[in-house]
Amino acid sequence: MNPTAQLMNPTPIAVKEYLLNLQEAICKMVETFDQQSSFNRKKIESPTTFAQPRVLADGKHIEKAAVNFTHSKGDAMPSAATVRRPQLSGKSFQAVSLSWIIHPKNPYAPTTHGNLRFFIAGESDPIWWFGGGIDLTPYYGFTEDVIHWHKTAQKACLPFGDAIYPKFKKACDQYFYLPHRKECRGVGGLFFDDWNQNGFNESFGLLQSIGQHFIPAYLPILEKRAKMQYGERQRNHQLYRRGRYVEFNLLYDRGTKYGLQSGRRIESVLASMPPMVSFVYNYSPQVDSPEEQLLTEFLRPRDWI
Amino acid sequence: MNPTAQLMNPTPIAVKEYLLNLQEAICKMVETFDQQSSFNRKKIESPTTFAQPRVLADGKHIEKAAVNFTHSKGDAMPSAATVRRPQLSGKSFQAVSLSWIIHPKNPYAPTTHGNLRFFIAGESDPIWWFGGGIDLTPYYGFTEDVIHWHKTAQKACLPFGDAIYPKFKKACDQYFYLPHRKECRGVGGLFFDDWNQNGFNESFGLLQSIGQHFIPAYLPILEKRAKMQYGERQRNHQLYRRGRYVEFNLLYDRGTKYGLQSGRRIESVLASMPPMVSFVYNYSPQVDSPEEQLLTEFLRPRDWI
Repeated sequence: MNPTAQLMNPTPIAVKEYLLNLQEAICKMVETFDQQSSFNRKKIESPTTFAQPRVLADGKHIEKAAVNFTHSKGDAMPSAATVRRPQLSGKSFQAVSLSWIIHPKNPYAPTTHGNLRFFIAGESDPIWWFGGGIDLTPYYGFTEDVIHWHKTAQKACLPFGDAIYPKFKKACDQYFYLPHRKECRGVGGLFFDDWNQNGFNESFGLLQSIGQHFIPAYLPILEKRAKMQYGERQRNHQLYRRGRYVEFNLLYDRGTKYGLQSGRRIESVLASMPPMVSFVYNYSPQVDSPEEQLLTEFLRPRDWI
Repeated sequence: MNPTAQLMNPTPIAVKEYLLNLQEAICKMVETFDQQSSFNRKKIESPTTFAQPRVLADGKHIEKAAVNFTHSKGDAMPSAATVRRPQLSGKSFQAVSLSWIIHPKNPYAPTTHGNLRFFIAGESDPIWWFGGGIDLTPYYGFTEDVIHWHKTAQKACLPFGDAIYPKFKKACDQYFYLPHRKECRGVGGLFFDDWNQNGFNESFGLLQSIGQHFIPAYLPILEKRAKMQYGERQRNHQLYRRGRYVEFNLLYDRGTKYGLQSGRRIESVLASMPPMVSFVYNYSPQVDSPEEQLLTEFLRPRDWI
């Protein structure tokens, strides 16, 4: 698998370099598409953290986008973080992470979110794993878009075996789920965690492949939908559906919970929140409308390929 | 204390009657003030529940208000609910609750929230308590309003002893707090739980007194602020600050958590969410502006009387 890669020891440096490049690529993609707004490009450095939080707001087509890189180090794992993995207790660690979210203005264009991360603890014979994924949250369902999204996600996984895409796809459907609504947050994609299968080289290769396939998966959909005509009805539906995003992030998302509890920079943790949201009591879409079809046809686990 | 009341055995019937009257009074107050919109008046009945969820939206002055009454009964306390009180396990129970929230349109008018509830378990020698409170969340701080609010809250408590107001006021400041922001949600008010001091008669009298003082505490503020001139700057600030309300409700509020976990009707549980909200990255108000003064002068525990 991934035969061109050199065999490497597990190292955050290579992952960091890759994720910083991907951050720049995603930011450029968004800026090029938007043609009006650009990301702030600031760095936050401390003895234990190097972060590049990048946020773009009020663009022509992109209402809000956040693409945040963080590299953090510590001398000893806090005991609260090692309850489930006592073998990590007291070990030095490093975590590298890129998270991104894109909230387009046009209700026909879906929101997308991704995260790629690497964790390593200990010096000799370190414990390490990758995690992350990419997912798509439409406000209006277009079957061809969802098929394209999932086919591209599958393409990212195929060089690493047939079993990867179905496994990560299922994990994504399970993770982005709102039990109190009995709804999926979106149409899914890929989700993985604690991943170190077949060693560092191959796992890193898979992470890179998922990263490389994000823009080809999302940009064609954005290009097709972000300039469609829409009116108040579509905008209201989008603002309402964004409420589900808020509910998921604050009630269930592990990254948000961890970020708030661990005292990370709040503005970065909550940068993924939608720019504008409405909460409408007892909203129910018209029968057989596109707004209803989103729920009945799209926001439930389906085999899209 | 409360010398005019007859001695009664603990009973949900009297509390239910009182809370239904209070529900009607609060709804009438909102409708009379708004002059444009009115509450839906529907009932939901099942063998175990009687509910009157009332919501008003898109009024002239009130953007959203929810005033929800619920009376629920069960044959046996679920074991999950009795971990901290094993003596309740298996007992029959009843819970009566009125919750309300008012989100005015005008950013100078504060949001307010209240809840009054009674719980009783077992037939002979029952275990029972009251809980609830009232609190105020301004977007712009007016010292005279907050003093009026707290003086009226104090007046509600005084017939029951000098110690009640300071105790409930402190509990309110502690409960409506966002640790990840190090901010109070609002300027507080009253908060109490597990309350059965000096018997049913006196505890119920205190509950009623708090209920009776809500309208005199809030309406004069609403009347003074809801017709003030405002512009985009004030509206944006209000939409932004409402985000804190969302964060509190979904991250910390026990009632919301309990409602979502226990499978209560979602639309009622989340009826308190603000109608329209914005999430702005890295918002920071101008130095010495009224928006900054809200944070520095009002959203921290203070002795207002």
